[in-house]
Amino acid sequence: MPIETHKIQVESEGNNQVVDITPRLIDTLNHADISNGVATLFVLGSTAGITTTEYEPGLVNHDLKDCFDRIAPEKGRYEHEKTWQDDNGHSHLRASLLGPSLTVPIQDCKPTLGTWQQIVLIDFDTRPRQRHIVVQLIGE
Amino acid sequence: MPIETHKIQVESEGNNQVVDITPRLIDTLNHADISNGVATLFVLGSTAGITTTEYEPGLVNHDLKDCFDRIAPEKGRYEHEKTWQDDNGHSHLRASLLGPSLTVPIQDCKPTLGTWQQIVLIDFDTRPRQRHIVVQLIGE
Amino acid sequence: MPIETHKIQVESEGNNQVVDITPRLIDTLNHADISNGVATLFVLGSTAGITTTEYEPGLVNHDLKDCFDRIAPEKGRYEHEKTWQDDNGHSHLRASLLGPSLTVPIQDCKPTLGTWQQIVLIDFDTRPRQRHIVVQLIGE
Repeated sequence: MPIETHKIQVESEGNNQVVDITPRLIDTLNHADISNGVATLFVLGSTAGITTTEYEPGLVNHDLKDCFDRIAPEKGRYEHEKTWQDDNGHSHLRASLLGPSLTVPIQDCKPTLGTWQQIVLIDFDTRPRQRHIVVQLIGE
Repeated sequence: MPIETHKIQVESEGNNQVVDITPRLIDTLNHADISNGVATLFVLGSTAGITTTEYEPGLVNHDLKDCFDRIAPEKGRYEHEKTWQDDNGHSHLRASLLGPSLTVPIQDCKPTLGTWQQIVLIDFDTRPRQRHIVVQLIGE
Repeated sequence: MPIETHKIQVESEGNNQVVDITPRLIDTLNHADISNGVATLFVLGSTAGITTTEYEPGLVNHDLKDCFDRIAPEKGRYEHEKTWQDDNGHSHLRASLLGPSLTVPIQDCKPTLGTWQQIVLIDFDTRPRQRHIVVQLIGE
């Protein structure tokens, strides 16, 4: 039965950096045997998430950060930080709310996206991270 | 291998309109060859999202809108709007946070939902839109 | 074609209780015939959701609750509650925002999680509930 496991590795600066991973997914699909089905993207770790957005500077560099800062303020006080003596309580909350995974239909080796819709990783951690995304393809 | 691609088209008024698409999915399943597996629903575009809710007027016409207005206020100021000279910065943020897709198990041609749980599209854009949802079925 | 439907039943106290269901998924996988593919977890009902987090007391008992209380305050006023004369308007909003499902890749009978990443059910309802999660496995 046609299942393929691929991996995408992303270098991120953290601090709410929004990384467009659409080209990486398309590159993966170009090297895969499955051309129709679904791709499940899942980021390992509990301080990053995956969603879609229009990848333009206003949203990516400003608005998304402001929005997440309303939901889980960077300067807030978190019990998590007392546990570990660290500073990324807000990162965990943002990641849990956004969710670690996205499942997207694949047709003819391409994800079925809108014209102004890109798949993005948002890295909420407070330091640079190397991120590992599992891409599970199921199809034919 | 059993994969089927279907499409659901929805006319929406935008402005946080919540559209119950459960009957549309059930109709799709009634015309499909796959009766057990999973359905991945994915809305094209970056100003709408998919989730589940109890489809009753209080939540659908008032509470969900108020909630999303706390997260990304309609009257807020967004860098996105400077980029495009438009007015839907909040729409993009809400859509990214909610997410464009839902994967739901299918048993005997029906989605496995709770009694008071419906699958909904929420259209956050600021004008009427025709929405296209890809429904990818995988199963038997 | 290899599809398996399993069920996980969870007793919850509600009120934003965060339940680690990773051991339950692993137990399910240990009794399944499918060892590689994806698992779609879907909670029935419209007042609970599924995501991942680091399962430590600070986040689980305090920070996640505070975060959801900013998004949909427990003491808020909701039209939903006028409809049904109940008190769980905030529960519905939190559940819709978090989403009822998670799709996770499976490799060698295990979900592909980060070291500090667990799969959790968050029960937002205002009373104890027995929760039913459908686990749909597709793979080989």
